[in-house]
Amino acid sequence: MYDSAMVTAATEQSTTPAPGSPPATPLSVAIVGASGYTGAELLRLLAGHPGFELTVATGDSMAGTRIADLYPSLALAYGDRVFDAYAPDAVAGADLVFCGLPHGVSMGVVPELIDRVGTIVDLGSDFRLLDPGLYPTWYGAEHTCPELLERSAYGLPELFRDDIAGADLIAATGCNAATATLTLAPLLAAGLIEPDGLVVNLITGVSGAGRPPKPNTTFCTVDENVTAYGLLTHRHTPEIEQALLQSTGRAASVLFTPHLVPTNRGILASCYGRPAEPGITTDDVVKAMADFYADEPFVLVDERSPETKAVTGSNAVHLTGRVDPRTGLVLGIGVLDNLMKGASGMAVQCANIATGQPETTGLATVGLYP
Amino acid sequence: MYDSAMVTAATEQSTTPAPGSPPATPLSVAIVGASGYTGAELLRLLAGHPGFELTVATGDSMAGTRIADLYPSLALAYGDRVFDAYAPDAVAGADLVFCGLPHGVSMGVVPELIDRVGTIVDLGSDFRLLDPGLYPTWYGAEHTCPELLERSAYGLPELFRDDIAGADLIAATGCNAATATLTLAPLLAAGLIEPDGLVVNLITGVSGAGRPPKPNTTFCTVDENVTAYGLLTHRHTPEIEQALLQSTGRAASVLFTPHLVPTNRGILASCYGRPAEPGITTDDVVKAMADFYADEPFVLVDERSPETKAVTGSNAVHLTGRVDPRTGLVLGIGVLDNLMKGASGMAVQCANIATGQPETTGLATVGLYP
Amino acid sequence: MYDSAMVTAATEQSTTPAPGSPPATPLSVAIVGASGYTGAELLRLLAGHPGFELTVATGDSMAGTRIADLYPSLALAYGDRVFDAYAPDAVAGADLVFCGLPHGVSMGVVPELIDRVGTIVDLGSDFRLLDPGLYPTWYGAEHTCPELLERSAYGLPELFRDDIAGADLIAATGCNAATATLTLAPLLAAGLIEPDGLVVNLITGVSGAGRPPKPNTTFCTVDENVTAYGLLTHRHTPEIEQALLQSTGRAASVLFTPHLVPTNRGILASCYGRPAEPGITTDDVVKAMADFYADEPFVLVDERSPETKAVTGSNAVHLTGRVDPRTGLVLGIGVLDNLMKGASGMAVQCANIATGQPETTGLATVGLYP
Amino acid sequence: MYDSAMVTAATEQSTTPAPGSPPATPLSVAIVGASGYTGAELLRLLAGHPGFELTVATGDSMAGTRIADLYPSLALAYGDRVFDAYAPDAVAGADLVFCGLPHGVSMGVVPELIDRVGTIVDLGSDFRLLDPGLYPTWYGAEHTCPELLERSAYGLPELFRDDIAGADLIAATGCNAATATLTLAPLLAAGLIEPDGLVVNLITGVSGAGRPPKPNTTFCTVDENVTAYGLLTHRHTPEIEQALLQSTGRAASVLFTPHLVPTNRGILASCYGRPAEPGITTDDVVKAMADFYADEPFVLVDERSPETKAVTGSNAVHLTGRVDPRTGLVLGIGVLDNLMKGASGMAVQCANIATGQPETTGLATVGLYP
Repeated sequence: MYDSAMVTAATEQSTTPAPGSPPATPLSVAIVGASGYTGAELLRLLAGHPGFELTVATGDSMAGTRIADLYPSLALAYGDRVFDAYAPDAVAGADLVFCGLPHGVSMGVVPELIDRVGTIVDLGSDFRLLDPGLYPTWYGAEHTCPELLERSAYGLPELFRDDIAGADLIAATGCNAATATLTLAPLLAAGLIEPDGLVVNLITGVSGAGRPPKPNTTFCTVDENVTAYGLLTHRHTPEIEQALLQSTGRAASVLFTPHLVPTNRGILASCYGRPAEPGITTDDVVKAMADFYADEPFVLVDERSPETKAVTGSNAVHLTGRVDPRTGLVLGIGVLDNLMKGASGMAVQCANIATGQPETTGLATVGLYP
Repeated sequence: MYDSAMVTAATEQSTTPAPGSPPATPLSVAIVGASGYTGAELLRLLAGHPGFELTVATGDSMAGTRIADLYPSLALAYGDRVFDAYAPDAVAGADLVFCGLPHGVSMGVVPELIDRVGTIVDLGSDFRLLDPGLYPTWYGAEHTCPELLERSAYGLPELFRDDIAGADLIAATGCNAATATLTLAPLLAAGLIEPDGLVVNLITGVSGAGRPPKPNTTFCTVDENVTAYGLLTHRHTPEIEQALLQSTGRAASVLFTPHLVPTNRGILASCYGRPAEPGITTDDVVKAMADFYADEPFVLVDERSPETKAVTGSNAVHLTGRVDPRTGLVLGIGVLDNLMKGASGMAVQCANIATGQPETTGLATVGLYP
Repeated sequence: MYDSAMVTAATEQSTTPAPGSPPATPLSVAIVGASGYTGAELLRLLAGHPGFELTVATGDSMAGTRIADLYPSLALAYGDRVFDAYAPDAVAGADLVFCGLPHGVSMGVVPELIDRVGTIVDLGSDFRLLDPGLYPTWYGAEHTCPELLERSAYGLPELFRDDIAGADLIAATGCNAATATLTLAPLLAAGLIEPDGLVVNLITGVSGAGRPPKPNTTFCTVDENVTAYGLLTHRHTPEIEQALLQSTGRAASVLFTPHLVPTNRGILASCYGRPAEPGITTDDVVKAMADFYADEPFVLVDERSPETKAVTGSNAVHLTGRVDPRTGLVLGIGVLDNLMKGASGMAVQCANIATGQPETTGLATVGLYP
Repeated sequence: MYDSAMVTAATEQSTTPAPGSPPATPLSVAIVGASGYTGAELLRLLAGHPGFELTVATGDSMAGTRIADLYPSLALAYGDRVFDAYAPDAVAGADLVFCGLPHGVSMGVVPELIDRVGTIVDLGSDFRLLDPGLYPTWYGAEHTCPELLERSAYGLPELFRDDIAGADLIAATGCNAATATLTLAPLLAAGLIEPDGLVVNLITGVSGAGRPPKPNTTFCTVDENVTAYGLLTHRHTPEIEQALLQSTGRAASVLFTPHLVPTNRGILASCYGRPAEPGITTDDVVKAMADFYADEPFVLVDERSPETKAVTGSNAVHLTGRVDPRTGLVLGIGVLDNLMKGASGMAVQCANIATGQPETTGLATVGLYP
């Protein structure tokens, strides 16, 4: 049943869709909010990126602490370097700024940096939703700089590459939204499924909850456990709907239900839709996905059921699809590493695009296995 | 939002729906196929059951091996006892027989025992589907004793208690089917959801795959991994549809998609249906579940999102429900321990009913946590 | 090489060394500090103990919270019952009191209860060390009621059963100390190893760190990780030395090094000593262990390498030993479940002894596997 | 207590001890035995190594199978490439050959390749022990080409870099032996500990057991479990003793006890020795380690207790040491990733040295965390 010709994506890491070349001298890079998991992942990626050079890494609650003491995994790359306290003047002038801040904090920081630096890639949620009216509903507070929302590009390169290329503010996609949107967009774009009443049943590991200890992320709470959370109210819901609308023109409505399982990394989204026309088959669905992502260096489409472990530590997305002849329902499944393609890897990919470097620079397509 | 009055189920283990009392002398019990995980769980439960006394425990591939050597967890209870080889004459005369055999093996064993023993509780799939025509489609082979299918009661006590009470052959429900059916039955019975196009998105641990090593159940394959399997073709699909039809009279069609995650035990089913009438609410759904299971000692219904770890090692089922006002979709969630309420615990519950003992004898309602 | 005749311990749960019978009316039991993991385990055990009836369960930080909301695993047994606030008068009169309090808190509570209740079993460390001079060194503070230390029995039944039988204050052993002491005591008692320079290299799961979230017990910190902690300074060190001295008369000196691994429960101690005489063999060591624990219902000794999973949820201890002919070193290995035999199970075992009930009442000898 | 000045190792990845530069055209590389976990890790590393180009990847049992089908993690790098069947002529002429074969198989393959290829790096155990008389004792069979043992360099670069530089056959160190030897060598070389009666208590993840399913490596067997294995008889014992003798001139005797815990990767060795002189301190021990590895790009020495997770996916080794003033015993602790610094990473490091390339090429010093 498996047809290797359907496999999409470059077989060599060197074939990149976006032309570009490493700059003669590396670009200066600041990370504002480097002490969380997405910040640590950026530090890991920057240690191996030839085009970017770290100049500032802030982490207010950790200012003065050695990076190596908080993250021994980074010790051999960062030695005695400490987290800096945030100060706009210290960041000003950077060619590139990554923001890895909690919800609501970026909207205070971005306005004071946006005209004093090159490109800002925000890994938080403050600039993802274009309609300022959605923030009170989903985030419980008014947006404090709605005028910047129009300047923000949505940082999902496979769907919005052109926007990203010219942007000075990029809002990297939420990890769950990225998984669901990349899975569903080809099916909506090809007209294979109805846009309303989509079910996104998602399974995620724990690192998406961040570094600070919480009652629901202790080892004894999570290990040997499976539970659903954020029922009916998860904040990535409107983000999925917006991204699907903007990329496919279809006004989707989504019931998004995330589940927490005992893994560090990895998201798997099982997405269910009603068929838009009778008689469609699994081949139609897989082919639509493969065609949609034909030139993408980080996307693999085939008929195998994807597994999260295959993408650990990489910027890859693996996808498949099915049509159930018994119920007629269409199923799309996608996986990615939430800290990579769902956060820091995607942010570096966006930064590569925005700064004119080869899009795959510093990003693995192969996963760490086992 | 949580209403404790909605909580159902006995607050004391002593309140059992089925009257009965332990027999003056324990009933003699044989386990045919005791060396697998469901067999080992039966051995664990029998070590603490006052009404049952083990007389034979067969395990052909392990015959002659000490139980304690295969399962050191059982060493202090079983000492130097070994697994027996199977012989019908050695089992004949038993008051009660549990069969823990692979698919297709029970249909060879049950005919030679059914008229020579008291009650048979089969934990396999050979006597679950009433229509013999379904076996070639879903199990790839003809049923060899279809005449026994009519004598078989479906071993899900909360839905088929009366059938079980008088049966001499009981087919304990499949672990996935039990979870999905117990979650969906109240919603169908109350007319809250449409029966067609139901989505059962299920997440399961690894022990359901059994003891023998397989490439897809090694630690390095499963740990830190999430994947979907059995896409469109899992054998519990017709079992769910049959159980829902028989218990509610509604001809449901189900797309069942199981996912494997790194836990030993535990199943969580997220079940999605379209509303059968407009305007129904989360309260309607939770109340329907609570009413349906009002007198059940092993079922907990409330508004909290259930977690698999809460039922580890117990015979409990925890349920909740939601109605999404945005999409109108209805969501039911249920959890159980696949080796207990999904297999051996349910089998003991059925045996308690069939032999006239208190239904909760030897079965915990509290989970081992953490 | 395995000799089943060396296996020790009852093969039936009913053979208990200490005579006794369940009281006609259950004893009244209070738990002071019921909201932590050891408290929750006590609640689980009491739900199935025929001789004890819970009257008060305090948990100051959780007072007013439903037990079922903090521990859904206990929901079907405890219904709408809430954690009580602690008040001495409410506890006074109880036949039995379990204290599951943090270090330093018990020494404030026990003096105001000890003459107003039957028996106190303290699961904390405040009454374990007999020499008050050790508290400043190892716990950083003076003992506030040193006069009670003499009234305290050390709660390790296999070594101090007679003391426990008559005590009104019992200090349940620390989980690590219990594992190491039970492993080493037979070897010292038999004169097989030198008492000085013993190495206790211990591996433990996470639940011993308790319920409150801490940076070093989050899932992402612990999962896929192994580390040693408390190097040279762990507080169970003097407890091991004291217990070995009191039970064997040998003044042992111990280097105790615990390691944290990603499991919920379970401790394995690998204990190394120099041989006290030349020519001793593995058989000598295993036989010394088997003889020492010949009548113990919860102890298994054999030549197999024990595994923590075999004792999960049970009150069992599994032991083995080796002599290395190459280096001459003696190795003893022991495992137990830190929340059961290392805490709450041991506490119930002590309470059974102290109140004259069968010692194994309410305690499993078989583990939950897998 | 922590002194950052003691931290050793390059703070930049670019400072490599061995000079060299990438070849103008990549060297041709064959992997004989590429389908196991060490083979897959080599394939992952080669996908990002600028100086090596894969020409042949054999995997006899998997010949004809797509690499992407066995390891979806490699799909985007290897496309439709399949595992080759082994044939000496197809490998002959390769500049570099990695052998990832089971014990006993390399000694059949190496003789037919050694004079027809450039450099062979064998990841198995067949050429590690220099004394052919040790093979019958520890591996149960005579060595079939003992004359090649003298040509073999022991592949632990930090101790035997010069031997490796000129070798045409390199035996990469066993993962456990590498951890223990790197931890103990500085202490023996500095004369801080006695060489006899050393205790190596090691904790390892599961991937060291390889890809094929076995009863003791299934998820349900390993998860939530801790056990010791290979008691007194593990084959890495003589390897540790040989490596310590050759690198320090001290005839060490070692009791090596490995323990299996539920992690994919990672080894932690806790090594205990008696002090060689009175009065030595923790500072002495840590300083000896830091001095010994002062110029090593992959070794970190400091006073923190190291954790395996910090080195996941990297070629790093993290070390610390202690002296216990109570018992006088010396404790050294080391961690590494068994598939990287314990196997394939070390093999690439050796290959870099042997082929004159920068020693750190293609090897991360930072770990994937969390």
